[in-house]
Amino acid sequence: MSETTTSEAEVRAVAARGREAAAELAPLRRAQKDAALQAMADALVQHTEAILAANAKDVAAGRDGGLDEGLIDRLALNADRIAAMAQGLRDVAGLPDPVGEVVRGYTQPNGLEIRQIRVPFGVIAMIYEARPNVTVDAAGLALKSGNAALLRGSGSAYESNTVLVQVLSDAAAKAGLPADAILRVPGTDRASVGHLLRARGLVDLIIPRGGAGLINYVVENASVPVIETGVGNVHVYVDASADLDMAERIVVNSKISRPSVCNSAESLLVHRAIADEFLPRITAALQAAGVVLHGDADFAGQPGVEPAGDEDWAREYLSMDMAARVVDSVEEAVAHIRRWSTGHTEAIVSRDLDTARYFVARVDSAAVMVNASTRFTDGGEFGFGAEIGISTQKLHARGPMGLGELTSTKWVVTGEGHTR
Amino acid sequence: MSETTTSEAEVRAVAARGREAAAELAPLRRAQKDAALQAMADALVQHTEAILAANAKDVAAGRDGGLDEGLIDRLALNADRIAAMAQGLRDVAGLPDPVGEVVRGYTQPNGLEIRQIRVPFGVIAMIYEARPNVTVDAAGLALKSGNAALLRGSGSAYESNTVLVQVLSDAAAKAGLPADAILRVPGTDRASVGHLLRARGLVDLIIPRGGAGLINYVVENASVPVIETGVGNVHVYVDASADLDMAERIVVNSKISRPSVCNSAESLLVHRAIADEFLPRITAALQAAGVVLHGDADFAGQPGVEPAGDEDWAREYLSMDMAARVVDSVEEAVAHIRRWSTGHTEAIVSRDLDTARYFVARVDSAAVMVNASTRFTDGGEFGFGAEIGISTQKLHARGPMGLGELTSTKWVVTGEGHTR
Repeated sequence: MSETTTSEAEVRAVAARGREAAAELAPLRRAQKDAALQAMADALVQHTEAILAANAKDVAAGRDGGLDEGLIDRLALNADRIAAMAQGLRDVAGLPDPVGEVVRGYTQPNGLEIRQIRVPFGVIAMIYEARPNVTVDAAGLALKSGNAALLRGSGSAYESNTVLVQVLSDAAAKAGLPADAILRVPGTDRASVGHLLRARGLVDLIIPRGGAGLINYVVENASVPVIETGVGNVHVYVDASADLDMAERIVVNSKISRPSVCNSAESLLVHRAIADEFLPRITAALQAAGVVLHGDADFAGQPGVEPAGDEDWAREYLSMDMAARVVDSVEEAVAHIRRWSTGHTEAIVSRDLDTARYFVARVDSAAVMVNASTRFTDGGEFGFGAEIGISTQKLHARGPMGLGELTSTKWVVTGEGHTR
Repeated sequence: MSETTTSEAEVRAVAARGREAAAELAPLRRAQKDAALQAMADALVQHTEAILAANAKDVAAGRDGGLDEGLIDRLALNADRIAAMAQGLRDVAGLPDPVGEVVRGYTQPNGLEIRQIRVPFGVIAMIYEARPNVTVDAAGLALKSGNAALLRGSGSAYESNTVLVQVLSDAAAKAGLPADAILRVPGTDRASVGHLLRARGLVDLIIPRGGAGLINYVVENASVPVIETGVGNVHVYVDASADLDMAERIVVNSKISRPSVCNSAESLLVHRAIADEFLPRITAALQAAGVVLHGDADFAGQPGVEPAGDEDWAREYLSMDMAARVVDSVEEAVAHIRRWSTGHTEAIVSRDLDTARYFVARVDSAAVMVNASTRFTDGGEFGFGAEIGISTQKLHARGPMGLGELTSTKWVVTGEGHTR
């Protein structure tokens, strides 16, 4: 498809419709929202053919435009994938409603009753790349948490997203929800994203999901509050006291179980005291699994290890590559991590309590693993039931974000004519 | 004083020093932080003369520059005000430490132990106007919550803030804290604020405190996460079912008890069913207290009421002025509030439970008061012991912010060699 642009007025008009819908969504009961989610799931399955037809256009346009096969695979839908998206909506319907939870509540000495209650944000905009399933996930999670969803997928999934939003929105409306609860933001160029980023007062929160380029663009240009997600230059530190069998299992699992995702390890740090024993072993294990190591001078002594430089310490490979370095102490490991990490997840493998406590206290990342794979930083593994992304910022949400992170709070104060 | 500018490199260098200090502050025990706070309080009192001498320069420069007497009063210090600032630090020392609190903690079916723990943000920048006491408050609250403080007061308080930061910083360092835990950001022009707003990766959070102009400038130009504070176009709605004695007390208290602060009421909405009885009464009561009413056509029938237009509904007067309107229903009251409110605080006076519930559910503001003065939206009144500001945004913190709101969280996950 060709790129389409959209004026600021058009983007703001869509956001304003979302804002009106949000006012109606906020007081809805859980039963109404769950019924809509079930209806949306049914509708996806019923409209499988129309969705696949639209998706085929995107895939054909992607191939014509030279999109690589990895991206084509993320973009392409089939009946199973649509069924899985529908099941995802049913799973969200099964989760507790975060809205209405009393976070704090107490009575002051003067008798004033103070309650802090979870409420929806209002309008949440999601800006994302390639995968059309994000359209369905984001709509479902936003709706369950009482928010209107403004969805801005990539141009490469334009036809798929258009049909998906239509199907979801019609089903939600038939189930009694506001017609504008789920909205697609028009336009496929970056300028129209810019209008969304500046729609302060109309949009309450923007969540970008995608590569570092997209996320940086959003953070640098937004006046609407943003939650940064996902970039993970993730480290595993193997301490002098580590159980080396455990260390090998954790390093290999952290690296290879799904190298394209943000919680996969990208850098390995090994304490010098165990380097003679552990370096040959971990190098062989990783290479046997297909990993290319980029090592410092110590690691470079192992066969087949490429030399590493600062670009390797800084890199989120998202591939079967791993940077590797020997450190003299846990302090040096922490210093390396503080310099190069993106603050997503770091792991220590250690049997020494003091060392583990030091590492946990000094590493400034969303998640710190002690004797566990970095791959556990995940909403599902944390028991959230659903995940909207993994926040790497410190404001509002840090680490995996579930439904609760899609809410704000409101203070309700009840008196009997109290004055100051 | 003349305006001084500062290069981006200088601002970033100061922020980088704060970042190093933050790494040392994060693992400090409460006892160490409290001892430093007490030492800082002692130092303020000991250096009263030097502080007053610096402040006298600011006051003289302010008078020369034509600063109005209200601002001069906010700027001017005396021995009592310094003693009060010192007492504020001692009060903060007496509060519980938010760092280390386990917010959530559970063990997953696979045995993985998951804990979400409060940690400091790291580096918090405060950008504020006139009052030098904010320098002391902000330094104390940041330090207690384990954060480095980057302080950027207004040019009009330059000399006062320079001495205050020096005194606080020296005292903290003597008590064993990092020398760079409390830093003043150099420069007095807006461009140097801009450098701070873009110091992503060095500054974790920016909190602006001041008028709407400052807050808008910060939000529009920051790539660092921001918490918006304080602008309050606050409404009181008097329902048809209200106890009119109570309504009068609450309206008058909300308006006049301290009209210059953000939780003071600016607009009054009265249900038509009680207008005949209540309008003369509340008009007389407010006018007797010195309030100038800006009313709609209904209120304009009362003596001495000025006509109101959209600029009045939108206005945060911060003065003895109040906009006033008659509405036909609670729905109309809520619609008016949704259109004009800044989302700070709104109050309803009502005896009807359904009406109160409707108002609470539909008004989208940080605090909603039922039969209580709007003036209760305050960290002290909420029992926080200290307040860094009142957030009017929905991300991270909403309403009065205490020490907990100056922290983020970290997930600590402990296994026994767990892999996926």
